[in-house]
Amino acid sequence: MSAKVLTLGEVGALSDRILVANGVSAPQAGAVTRTIVAAERDHCQSHGLYRLLGYVRSMRRNQADGHAVPEVSDIAPSLLRIDAKRGFAPLAFETGLPLLVEKTRRQGIAAMAINHCLHFSALWAEVEPLADDGLVALALTPSHSWVAPAGGRKPIFGTNPIAFGWPRPGREPFVFDFATSAVARGEIELHRRAGKPIPADWAIDKDGNPTTDAAAALDGAMLTFGGHKGSALAAMVELLAGPLIGDLLSTESQKIDNQVGGPPYHGELIIAIDPAGFLGANVADHQARAETLFSGIIDQGARLPSQRRYDARKITATAGVPVPSALYYELVALI
Amino acid sequence: MSAKVLTLGEVGALSDRILVANGVSAPQAGAVTRTIVAAERDHCQSHGLYRLLGYVRSMRRNQADGHAVPEVSDIAPSLLRIDAKRGFAPLAFETGLPLLVEKTRRQGIAAMAINHCLHFSALWAEVEPLADDGLVALALTPSHSWVAPAGGRKPIFGTNPIAFGWPRPGREPFVFDFATSAVARGEIELHRRAGKPIPADWAIDKDGNPTTDAAAALDGAMLTFGGHKGSALAAMVELLAGPLIGDLLSTESQKIDNQVGGPPYHGELIIAIDPAGFLGANVADHQARAETLFSGIIDQGARLPSQRRYDARKITATAGVPVPSALYYELVALI
Repeated sequence: MSAKVLTLGEVGALSDRILVANGVSAPQAGAVTRTIVAAERDHCQSHGLYRLLGYVRSMRRNQADGHAVPEVSDIAPSLLRIDAKRGFAPLAFETGLPLLVEKTRRQGIAAMAINHCLHFSALWAEVEPLADDGLVALALTPSHSWVAPAGGRKPIFGTNPIAFGWPRPGREPFVFDFATSAVARGEIELHRRAGKPIPADWAIDKDGNPTTDAAAALDGAMLTFGGHKGSALAAMVELLAGPLIGDLLSTESQKIDNQVGGPPYHGELIIAIDPAGFLGANVADHQARAETLFSGIIDQGARLPSQRRYDARKITATAGVPVPSALYYELVALI
Repeated sequence: MSAKVLTLGEVGALSDRILVANGVSAPQAGAVTRTIVAAERDHCQSHGLYRLLGYVRSMRRNQADGHAVPEVSDIAPSLLRIDAKRGFAPLAFETGLPLLVEKTRRQGIAAMAINHCLHFSALWAEVEPLADDGLVALALTPSHSWVAPAGGRKPIFGTNPIAFGWPRPGREPFVFDFATSAVARGEIELHRRAGKPIPADWAIDKDGNPTTDAAAALDGAMLTFGGHKGSALAAMVELLAGPLIGDLLSTESQKIDNQVGGPPYHGELIIAIDPAGFLGANVADHQARAETLFSGIIDQGARLPSQRRYDARKITATAGVPVPSALYYELVALI
């Protein structure tokens, strides 16, 4: 597969040009571009330039308001709400971030709801800046209803990711970000395109029977990871990032999409905790104890989540990123 | 197996008598007894009267201070800390509960750390009263280091349960409570006693190889549920209910235990959110939307977590609970 190598600066410029050419305002485009550059930098191509195809589709189909100006509401001492107004999630997140950080430091813990956003970016890109700022962070969002509950057969949950960040002074934070579905939906789509069977614990067909056929799986329901435990977590994400903040369930987001296959339109919940609130002057001591947990994992040959991303980051800063030629020309054609 | 049927009142009286006879103060005994009665009421025998054997052992071995008076510290607008002072967790939780509820309603979200407690009770018994009070609740605690990280071979995590509660007006809340280990440690012990093999995804032997031998598993390491995702969650529980609140990791709790096999001595984190903080006067509308998620699960033949407990509750209120005769006489001998 031929590829064109772009510097991260070129990735950003390309992304900005495509978005602005398709009616996205400079602030909305800038925030989306920062998530796309971060994903390419970390070799997370699934959330990189490829996503621009979806962003542009949602503009051309009038799903997104590319000129939305997110509005911050200070609704309780430890809560804030950002109305994304049918804009993309990244600008809503960036708009709310300063007040979330301020509240978390003042109150000890705080929660930010983002409402009415088109969510198409990775959650690790949101917990990482909070952890870089010394805070502990948890982020949750539903999606479209593609996933059946344990013991069921009909899709009702989204892929419902959970992301968590823990600050590590002087180095990249401990960050994980995973779907509560057994696998990303795109992974099943890749198997279908390649004509390859999928593992038996990824999905069921539309009659509720186990299947290794990717097309039957896409027509049926995905399964959660970890059986009834993963299913319980998927329900928790629906509740916390849905009804709790007055926003949509994955089934409701799916209905609004009306089968056009756009990015999910719904809400997100971010919770942040300031370790200094519990630990006062002893933060460094207890953070050092947390490091013994991490070394206990690494020293036995296991891996910390996000390590692959951080390793990629060291390379792409100078080497740039390879973009498949077919994708590159498809993107350039959007300008 | 012969059994003696006790009313729930008799369960409570027996529990109180045993604890007080073994040097536990009336307030500490009362709080422990309430969790034991709740467990027997819900047919959760593993957290019922059987646990008294462990409580008494921890008194006789001087691990617990049966007369500890938990101390509440109001450390930040949305944070509080309960020092359990080497007493049992239930009284520390009950002591902190009113201030946690008050802070949650005032601030929108609040977190309570319990430090220096012997934790031997179920977490669902803590999130359920918060949800009964109309709040959303999340509770986390480490344990002893019995569980290997994904890709590793040495035990470093506890069984690290996560419990979640969501209020359902006029009925029992949506509650789940599960270990992030593949299975409870007691389950492997039961297989060992019965000479039965265990499933291959529960544990590894001390050399890190998969095993179906229960004794080899107990000598080796348990595995997390759900592979690297469950492993990430187990690490999150260690961090949030350990270093974040200035309390012990499961490896540290294990060292203090010094192989006597007592209840873990460590901390716990409880986070509560008031739906009214986000939803104001619209709480009922959005709770009704949450109910469509639950009916969407039930209507396809799947089960909500805790349903079995709630069903048992309807029976035991009048029928009482059967206590195996061997356990009953072992308990009576402790008085």
